[in-house]
Amino acid sequence: MGDLNIKTKTASFKNALYLESGRILEPFEIVYETYGTLNEAKDNAIVVCHALSGSHHAAGRYENDKKAGWWDALIGGGKPIDTDRFFVICANAIGSCYGSTGPISPAYPSLEPYRLKFPVVTVKDMVKAERLLLDRLGINAVFAVIGGSMGGMRALHFAVDYPALAKRTIVMAATHATSPWAIAFNKIAMEATISDPAFENGAYDIEALKERGLKGAAIGRMAGHISFLSPESMNRKFGRDFVGAEGLFDLFGRFQVERYLDYNGGSFPKWFDPLSFLYILKAINIYDISRGYDSLESALARVKSHLHLFGFERDLLFLPRETQEIDAAMKKIGKGELSDYYHIESDYGHDSFLVETNKFADILADILR
Amino acid sequence: MGDLNIKTKTASFKNALYLESGRILEPFEIVYETYGTLNEAKDNAIVVCHALSGSHHAAGRYENDKKAGWWDALIGGGKPIDTDRFFVICANAIGSCYGSTGPISPAYPSLEPYRLKFPVVTVKDMVKAERLLLDRLGINAVFAVIGGSMGGMRALHFAVDYPALAKRTIVMAATHATSPWAIAFNKIAMEATISDPAFENGAYDIEALKERGLKGAAIGRMAGHISFLSPESMNRKFGRDFVGAEGLFDLFGRFQVERYLDYNGGSFPKWFDPLSFLYILKAINIYDISRGYDSLESALARVKSHLHLFGFERDLLFLPRETQEIDAAMKKIGKGELSDYYHIESDYGHDSFLVETNKFADILADILR
Repeated sequence: MGDLNIKTKTASFKNALYLESGRILEPFEIVYETYGTLNEAKDNAIVVCHALSGSHHAAGRYENDKKAGWWDALIGGGKPIDTDRFFVICANAIGSCYGSTGPISPAYPSLEPYRLKFPVVTVKDMVKAERLLLDRLGINAVFAVIGGSMGGMRALHFAVDYPALAKRTIVMAATHATSPWAIAFNKIAMEATISDPAFENGAYDIEALKERGLKGAAIGRMAGHISFLSPESMNRKFGRDFVGAEGLFDLFGRFQVERYLDYNGGSFPKWFDPLSFLYILKAINIYDISRGYDSLESALARVKSHLHLFGFERDLLFLPRETQEIDAAMKKIGKGELSDYYHIESDYGHDSFLVETNKFADILADILR
Repeated sequence: MGDLNIKTKTASFKNALYLESGRILEPFEIVYETYGTLNEAKDNAIVVCHALSGSHHAAGRYENDKKAGWWDALIGGGKPIDTDRFFVICANAIGSCYGSTGPISPAYPSLEPYRLKFPVVTVKDMVKAERLLLDRLGINAVFAVIGGSMGGMRALHFAVDYPALAKRTIVMAATHATSPWAIAFNKIAMEATISDPAFENGAYDIEALKERGLKGAAIGRMAGHISFLSPESMNRKFGRDFVGAEGLFDLFGRFQVERYLDYNGGSFPKWFDPLSFLYILKAINIYDISRGYDSLESALARVKSHLHLFGFERDLLFLPRETQEIDAAMKKIGKGELSDYYHIESDYGHDSFLVETNKFADILADILR
């Protein structure tokens, strides 16, 4: 435990990043944090990949911060991702809004943000940029790449696109190609965001919006919150409890679950930029590990890393069945010895990889032992 | 088959309808259709109850109409709900927008619509009004009450509130109390609708809106469409097919599932009034068959009708488990002989009761034999 000695750094790249779309990002920056110490052989790194609205701040607390990084339960001295042994790197994905180049970054040589002129980036592009960051750090091999949700997609891309890089690849609550079901939830998020007149077709005042929020993105995020939970977790969290001064027979009287969505939806655009929201949703929608290959199997044929695939019971965004399909494809091509599937019992649905870390911490520790 | 001899009628009630909220509707009207012939004993009626956006037009075709009523597959001569034997009644629920008194009806003595001054109505209130319609028709006993989704909630209310009325009560794809999961989907629908500036706080031009639609309600309906389907039915219906001129790497390029949501969401406010949408969603949210009783069991203790409960595999709006809970409660209070649960295998999720009628038509015919 104790002080993780968080280092938040920015890596600036003057060269162009060639994107899957054929467009380029030039220059580009990646913001990242590291925890622990890189050994002399430079082979004790673990890359941790965040999800949609996550950031490079995966562990530890900044001074005066109440809330620790998003996977603080798992990363630290003596924790499963043990910073006494490993040098942990977590980079903000390009397209995001925490400092890595994204739609609210200045579109060089202008000082004005890209906004809707930002190119569509893919999960593969995100990982390509992260690979360049590792180069910059002099790291040619890592012990493991780990991520959940979009972070799991990133981890899988590392394994397919850079097969020599990681000994182990740990993919949680993620699929090999985003399903129409998940795209449908994202559709609500995107439509609600762009339909809000205050979105101003992407020309909104970025700083002012952080103060006042954006109703459309708030509604869109509500769709996300539904997909992150499950009927069972909602029953347990909220039941049919009713809250507030208005009564059951008032049209706008609220159940507890409605208050939860109001609060978490409403606050979201204040801490996550709506343009980045659109671009990251888009990246998730078009994610398909087999793009450019004949099939899932031919993409996975490249894998040399040991895949550890985690599916979560009641995950209704990326169904356990979809994660299992990766394992099945590995077995089908005779690479079963490089693939393990772990089914984690949990009522929390998709959010489990973030909120029920105790359900898989021991397995994770074993894998990294 | 053939001509159902559809009669669309309006029953006007000068007396007050006392609502669960303590408020009243006075006067009120119910629009309904009947198919088949009421026998002399007036005991061959079957009451069919529609869902959220359904109407009294359950079967047959109006002149020049391409599309038949919403349960035409099941209602007609020789069909499971056989109009050669039964007199079928389907009433538009109060609160709806197809002619029964709702928020866009004139608020007597004014000629102006109620709009947001319309009282919240409950599923129990809807059924109370329908019971008065049966009185008006001289019907004191019916052979069966049948409905799916909100129609199933109505059917269950008939059984609890008017135990002497129906021999058989057939409840499909419905719960005994709306879950926070379903309320969460409805929350998106309500928030998106009221947040659209063109909703004008309910003061929009009702006729003009039918022409131009309402983006907020369209987005809200998208949430509904997700909850009506399932990951499996979306895989089969849409896969990851991409449509239109814009490419995969265009921010607003669309997958087929997105086009489906655009189309079905976008058209919805043109045929279903957004104020009625809000009020019916509210009625569904606060539906709880045990309200006013100590428990589900004590509510069901009133039932004298034979309950036939249908749950649909992969229904993610009202889970089969919830329908089974009704059956379990009946058994718990020693009324197992009055309760049967049927689990229907289907990939279609909640929509199954509308679109996969072939999966349960035979069972339904047997029950009504």
